[in-house]
Amino acid sequence: MTEHSLWRFSRALHRALDERHLDDLENLIDDDIDWAIYGPVDMFTFLGARHGKAAVMEVCRQIADNVQVRRFERESVMLGENSAASMMRYSLTALDSNRPISLRVAHFARFRDGRLASMRVLVDTFDLVEQALGSPIHLPKIA
Amino acid sequence: MTEHSLWRFSRALHRALDERHLDDLENLIDDDIDWAIYGPVDMFTFLGARHGKAAVMEVCRQIADNVQVRRFERESVMLGENSAASMMRYSLTALDSNRPISLRVAHFARFRDGRLASMRVLVDTFDLVEQALGSPIHLPKIA
Repeated sequence: MTEHSLWRFSRALHRALDERHLDDLENLIDDDIDWAIYGPVDMFTFLGARHGKAAVMEVCRQIADNVQVRRFERESVMLGENSAASMMRYSLTALDSNRPISLRVAHFARFRDGRLASMRVLVDTFDLVEQALGSPIHLPKIA
Repeated sequence: MTEHSLWRFSRALHRALDERHLDDLENLIDDDIDWAIYGPVDMFTFLGARHGKAAVMEVCRQIADNVQVRRFERESVMLGENSAASMMRYSLTALDSNRPISLRVAHFARFRDGRLASMRVLVDTFDLVEQALGSPIHLPKIA
């Protein structure tokens, strides 16, 4: 049984983030990739939509410049023939402030010929913003 | 081919939210269900973790009391034998303020004997909070 594209991509992504070794990752991204991490782009410019390998590699470089992955746990995972989705919990360190950030993330990925062709990432953004600010935002009770 | 449990559950859930007809939904939830919608529980008490059918039905009632679903679009979906995951975009109306809320949601579901046994929901929470407040939260540019 061949290894699922998700595992190869995941190893290359974490190697890119941890060691800034980006070559493996670059080989696993489709030239025509469609990519989006939904979230407040005003606060983190590496969030948002990107198209094409060069733009996605630049995002990965920016993420590597800003956070260190301390550990991650895959809480749910679904694998299709050329697709995958996971819910993950990341423990990060923000490199500028040395602040720990613990974050839940869901991704939906599609692969073409073993390369990542589409990625959609949803983040628990309010949690992210509060941790990045380092202080809670006061919220009224609405319901 | 039997219909996937996700479709039956999804119809029952939306009927519960739209028409407050909760009986169909109740029949499709495992007594021992494990459920979590991650998000700011201080602002919305129906967010957070729940265990057991009664607690989950109460959450669904609270959501029905607070929002109306205008429409939803399933952007990505993955189906396993007894599991499913989707990324969805919801257009809601907050019933207290009559305010429109547009929201991206990811869910990971597991079914047992056709009933929902586990549900994990991730929401673009910062987007939700800003829309529920009705005004943007000023954010510094961090990266």
